[in-house]
Amino acid sequence: MRFRLETRYADYDTKGHVNNAVYLTFFEMARHRVWVERMNGDADFPFIIAEATVRYVSEAMIGQALDIEITTSEVRAKAWVWSYVIRMVDGGRVVAEGRTVQVMFDYKAHRAMPIPDGVRAQLAGV
Amino acid sequence: MRFRLETRYADYDTKGHVNNAVYLTFFEMARHRVWVERMNGDADFPFIIAEATVRYVSEAMIGQALDIEITTSEVRAKAWVWSYVIRMVDGGRVVAEGRTVQVMFDYKAHRAMPIPDGVRAQLAGV
Amino acid sequence: MRFRLETRYADYDTKGHVNNAVYLTFFEMARHRVWVERMNGDADFPFIIAEATVRYVSEAMIGQALDIEITTSEVRAKAWVWSYVIRMVDGGRVVAEGRTVQVMFDYKAHRAMPIPDGVRAQLAGV
Amino acid sequence: MRFRLETRYADYDTKGHVNNAVYLTFFEMARHRVWVERMNGDADFPFIIAEATVRYVSEAMIGQALDIEITTSEVRAKAWVWSYVIRMVDGGRVVAEGRTVQVMFDYKAHRAMPIPDGVRAQLAGV
Repeated sequence: MRFRLETRYADYDTKGHVNNAVYLTFFEMARHRVWVERMNGDADFPFIIAEATVRYVSEAMIGQALDIEITTSEVRAKAWVWSYVIRMVDGGRVVAEGRTVQVMFDYKAHRAMPIPDGVRAQLAGV
Repeated sequence: MRFRLETRYADYDTKGHVNNAVYLTFFEMARHRVWVERMNGDADFPFIIAEATVRYVSEAMIGQALDIEITTSEVRAKAWVWSYVIRMVDGGRVVAEGRTVQVMFDYKAHRAMPIPDGVRAQLAGV
Repeated sequence: MRFRLETRYADYDTKGHVNNAVYLTFFEMARHRVWVERMNGDADFPFIIAEATVRYVSEAMIGQALDIEITTSEVRAKAWVWSYVIRMVDGGRVVAEGRTVQVMFDYKAHRAMPIPDGVRAQLAGV
Repeated sequence: MRFRLETRYADYDTKGHVNNAVYLTFFEMARHRVWVERMNGDADFPFIIAEATVRYVSEAMIGQALDIEITTSEVRAKAWVWSYVIRMVDGGRVVAEGRTVQVMFDYKAHRAMPIPDGVRAQLAGV
C-alpha cells in the first residue's frame, strides 16, 4: 500500500534534509494508515516494535514531495515484518527503505501473544 | 531557578536556528527540572497547560550553549504562572522569553482542582 | 483557510493528548499550506516568527480527527499576524486557538524588511 | 564512552514508553557528545548517516534515568560504524541497542570522501 507523506518543516535539519530519526516516524505514519484506515485497528497500537532498520539511499530536500510504500514481508506466530520504501513523488527516486518487526502484545498480561487469525488474514493483504 | 539546556541536533531547522515550536519543549524541560527534581513531584505531571506564549528575541544557532531560567510569577486558587527566560550561556544575550499557565488537574474526576498547600508553598520558592 | 491536520502517533503524550508544544508545529503546518500551496511561496520561509501564543481549550485525544483554520488578522509595515483555530472535525469543538506574529526577513542583509506588495495583497485573502 | 541521556517529556508516547523513533535521536545525541565534546568537531556534522538499526530490548518508562554507551566498532576507508547500548542507570538493564553507519561527506563536492587521518585516529579512541 502506498501513501503520500505529509512532511513538516520541523522534519528538516540544518542542511535542509529530512533528519535521520524522522524516517522512523514516517514508517510509523505508514503503520498508522495501514492499521487504522485499512485494518480498522485502534490508533493506540496493540503491538510493539522489536527492531527497526533504515537505509538512507538519497537525499530528500525541503519542498520535495515523498510517498511511502508499506508491505508485509513476513508473518510469524507472534510477530510480523513490514518493509518500507520512501520515494520522490516526482520521478520515483528511492530516498530510504527499511523494515520493522512488530510483536503482537497483550498489554494486560504484559507479554507477547499470538497474532489473532483476523489480523493474520488482513496482514496478508498489505 | 536556572538550568543548562541540553539541545539536540534535531531541534535546529534548515536555517540552523532552534525551531520555533521547540521553545515550548524547552519550557517543558524547565518545568520537569523544577517539578521532579526540586519539588519531588511525579514525572507524569498532575497539571495541564492552559496557555503558553513565546517571544522570540534573538537567534540561537547550532553549537551555542543555552540556559533557561524559570520563575513562579503568579499563583491563583487552581492555577499558577511560570515565566521563562532563555539566554546564551556565553554573554547572557536573551534568546527567548515566555510564560505558561498551569492548572492543577484531578485526572480521576477530570477537572481542575485547588492547588494543594504543599505545592503552593513550594511554588513560592521557584 | 481551513485544512485537515495530519497528526502523528508521536504527537501524543503519556496521557493520550496532543503534546502542548506540538500545537506550534500544527500552526507551522498551516503556515506552510498557506504560504507554499496558496501563495506560491518557497518552503524555506522568508519570514521569522517574533511571537507565538497558544490557548489550550479542550483535549484532543489520539484517534480524533482535527482541522485548523488560519486567518490573517493584522498586517503592518514589516510584520503580520496569523490567527489559528484548531477544531474537532467531528462536531466542531474548539481544541486550541492562537496567533503568531511573522516578520518579513531579508536573510542576506539579516534584518526585517517591508512586506512586498504582492505578498501584502495575498495576505489579505487568507 | 558513556553518557547520561537527558530525556524529555515529549519523548514518551501514549503508553508511557520512549517512542521508537526517539532512539535514533538518542543515538544522535551520543554522536554529538563524542564528535563535538571529545573529538572537537563541528556541531554541524561533516558526515551523513547511511544506515541505522535499533533493537528494542526492554521498556524505558517515564521517570527512569537512562545512559548511553557509544563505541566505534568498525572503520573503513570512507565510513565507520558506531554501536550503541542504552541502559537503565539504576540496575543496568539494557533498554535498546543499535548501530549507525557514518559516511564522511564533502558537502561542497557533494560526495563521500576518505576519513581524514586525524579523525581516524580519534575514532579508534571512542
